[in-house]
Amino acid sequence: MQATIALLPGDGIGPEVVAEGVEVLKAVGERYGHSFSFSEGLIGGCAIDAHGTALPEATIDVCRAADAVLLGAVGGPKWDDPKAKVRPEQGLLGIRKTLGLYANLRPVTVTPALASRSPLRPDLVEGVDLLVVRELTGGIYFGDKTCVYIRPDEEQAVDTCVYTTSEIERVVRRACELARTRRGKVTSVDKANVLETSRLWRRVASRVVAEEFPEIQLEHILVDACAMHLLRRPADFDVIVTENMFGDILTDEASMLAGSLGLLPSASLGAGKAGLYEPIHGSAPDIAGKGIANPLATILSVALLLRYSLGLKAEAEAVEKAVYATIDAGILTGDLAPAGQGRSTKEVGAAVLERLG
Amino acid sequence: MQATIALLPGDGIGPEVVAEGVEVLKAVGERYGHSFSFSEGLIGGCAIDAHGTALPEATIDVCRAADAVLLGAVGGPKWDDPKAKVRPEQGLLGIRKTLGLYANLRPVTVTPALASRSPLRPDLVEGVDLLVVRELTGGIYFGDKTCVYIRPDEEQAVDTCVYTTSEIERVVRRACELARTRRGKVTSVDKANVLETSRLWRRVASRVVAEEFPEIQLEHILVDACAMHLLRRPADFDVIVTENMFGDILTDEASMLAGSLGLLPSASLGAGKAGLYEPIHGSAPDIAGKGIANPLATILSVALLLRYSLGLKAEAEAVEKAVYATIDAGILTGDLAPAGQGRSTKEVGAAVLERLG
Ligand SMILES: CC(C)[C@H](C(=O)O)[C@@H](O)C(=O)O
Ligand SMILES: CC(C)[C@H](C(=O)O)[C@@H](O)C(=O)O
Repeated sequence: MQATIALLPGDGIGPEVVAEGVEVLKAVGERYGHSFSFSEGLIGGCAIDAHGTALPEATIDVCRAADAVLLGAVGGPKWDDPKAKVRPEQGLLGIRKTLGLYANLRPVTVTPALASRSPLRPDLVEGVDLLVVRELTGGIYFGDKTCVYIRPDEEQAVDTCVYTTSEIERVVRRACELARTRRGKVTSVDKANVLETSRLWRRVASRVVAEEFPEIQLEHILVDACAMHLLRRPADFDVIVTENMFGDILTDEASMLAGSLGLLPSASLGAGKAGLYEPIHGSAPDIAGKGIANPLATILSVALLLRYSLGLKAEAEAVEKAVYATIDAGILTGDLAPAGQGRSTKEVGAAVLERLG
Repeated sequence: MQATIALLPGDGIGPEVVAEGVEVLKAVGERYGHSFSFSEGLIGGCAIDAHGTALPEATIDVCRAADAVLLGAVGGPKWDDPKAKVRPEQGLLGIRKTLGLYANLRPVTVTPALASRSPLRPDLVEGVDLLVVRELTGGIYFGDKTCVYIRPDEEQAVDTCVYTTSEIERVVRRACELARTRRGKVTSVDKANVLETSRLWRRVASRVVAEEFPEIQLEHILVDACAMHLLRRPADFDVIVTENMFGDILTDEASMLAGSLGLLPSASLGAGKAGLYEPIHGSAPDIAGKGIANPLATILSVALLLRYSLGLKAEAEAVEKAVYATIDAGILTGDLAPAGQGRSTKEVGAAVLERLG
C-alpha cells in the first residue's frame, strides 16, 4: 500500500525517538512492500520559536493531508511559564481538537521480563493487559475558562466541564468495539456521586452497552475507587473508558504498572481512519540531545499506527514482537537497564530493526 | 478538660467503628481526667430513611454545638441510584460545606509491620510518612451544575470548577503550618498547563509561601505526574496540598501505599478549632453488621480529634502508639490478618484499649 505519514517530532527527546520510529516504518515498508512517504511539521516549543504559535496552520495542513501522524513530545523549561499566553501544550491540545481525535487509546501491558521493574509487587502486575480509552476532545480541557478580579486582591478562576450525549456515545462505542476484540469487559469510570457530567456519562454508557453491545460486560466505578483498584487488582481490568481529566490522571498512574513510561504508546483516533500516535512520555529535557532516550514507546506507537490507521495487522504484530524480543534480550536504555548498562537510543532502535527481519 | 463530641455513625459499618472510637475516647477521658460528653445525629442513608434528607437540620445543630464531630461512613446499595434526588453523600458534602471545613488532612504512614501488605514493593513504601491536605469546600464539587436537553436525544451536562484567591490562600497556609511541624516540604499539585483554576492555584501558592513561609521548601507538580510519583518515590513526599477533586483521587491512590483503607484516618478542619473526623473508608455494606470491620482508621481519627480540636497532644500520641502496638502484636481484622486469622472489631478495639493503659 501507499501511505503518507506526517511527522511532528516536537521538542526535547521528541526528534530522537521519532527518528527511530521512522526507521521502523521504512523497514516495514521495505520488508512488506509498502511505500510510505513522510512529511514534517512543527509543533510545541519549536513552533513557538519559529512562528509564535504552538500549532502553525502549515502543521495542521500537513496532518490533514496525511494518513496518520507520528508525534514525539512537546514542551521544555524554555516555554514553561504558566503565565505565558503561548504554551507548547496548546499545540498538542489544538491538534487533538482540530483533527477530532476523541478517543485516546493507552494500552498497558506488563511483560514477564519487566514485571520486576514495576514499583508494584511482581505477582500483582504479571499478566496485566489493560487498555485505557480516554475521551480526548471534551470535558474540562475544552470548556470555557476565565480568571477575573472580583474584588481588589481577590481573583476568581473558573473552568467548565461539559459533556454531551453524543460525545459520550462515540467514545463508549469505541471502547466497546475494542473490548470485543479483547476480553469483552469494559469498566466505565466516573464520579457520578458528585458530578452532573458523570451522571450523564453513566447513563449514556449503560444505554449504549445495553442497546448495542449486549455481549459486553460493563461495570461502573468511581474515579477514586479506580485509583485504588488499579493498584490492588490491576490484572482484572480489560478496557477502561473515562472522561478526559480522569483519563489523564489514571493513565499516568497505570503507566507505573509497567515500570517505565518509556514503554507506553498511545493512539488518538477520530471518526475516520486517520489518527495521531505518540509515546505517553514527555519531552524529557534533562536527557534531550544525549542519544539515550528510550525509543520503544514511539516504536510501539508506530505499531498502533500500522494497526489502526493503515489496517496492517501483521506488520503491527511484527513490530510489537520485535520490541518484546529486544526487551527480552536485555537490550535496554538506561531507564530500564541495570545501572551502567544502558544502551543508546540508536542501539535499541537497531536491535528492534534486526529482530524485525 | 470538658468537651462535647458529636457522633454521626451513619450507615453500613459506620456505627460499629464509631462505637470503638467512643470506647477509646471514654478511656482517654478516664485515664487523663477529661470529661467527654457525647451527642448524636443522623447522616446519610439512615437520615434519608428517617427524615427524607441526608443532612437534617437537627444534625447540623448537634455538630455546631459540639467541640468536634466523629463520623463513621455514609451510603449503601439501598440509596445508590445516581438518578435519585436525595443521596447519602449529600450529607457528607453538606456537613463539610456547612461547617466550613475547608482543609481535609489525610495522613498516610506505613509501619514496618505493614509494609508487606502494600501492593507496592516493601522497599519503596517503608518509611512513607506523608500528609495530603485536600481543599474540601470548593472546586468542581460545589460549582454550578446543570443537565439539559439541547436537542431531542442530545443532553448537555455541565459542572463548574471555581476557585478564588482566598480559598486557595487559607488551605495552602494550613498545609505550610503543618509542614512546619514536619519535614518542612510542601508539594502543591495542580494542572496548570490546562486549567485556569490551577494557574491561579499555582500563583497563589507561590506567593503565600514566599511571603509567609520562606523556610518552607515548595514544589509544584502536575496532577498526572503526581499520580506517578506517588508510586515511584512515595517516601519523598512530606505535605501534599491540592484542590478538591485531585485530592479525592490522589488520597485514594496514596491510601494503597499503606496496604489497607482500614487504617487511614482523616481530619476536616475549618477556621476555628472544631473539626470533623472520619475514617477514609466507606460504609462497606458487604461486611456491615458482621462485627468484622477494621476499627483502627476510626480510632486513629479519634487521635486526630484529640490533637487538632481538643489540643490534647499527649493523649493523641498515646492513642496512636496503642494502635501501632496492636498492629505490631498482630491483632488485626480480616482485611490485614493472614487468611482465617482475622479478629473481630470488638477484639481489635479491646486490644487498643488494653495498650492505652
Ligand atoms: C501536556 C498535557 C496537556 C497532556 C494532557 O493533559 O492531555 C499530557 O499530560 C497527556 O496526557 O497527553
Ligand atoms: C462520598 C464522596 C462524595 C466523597 C468525596 O468525593 O469527597 C468521598 O469519596 C471522600 O473522599 O470523602
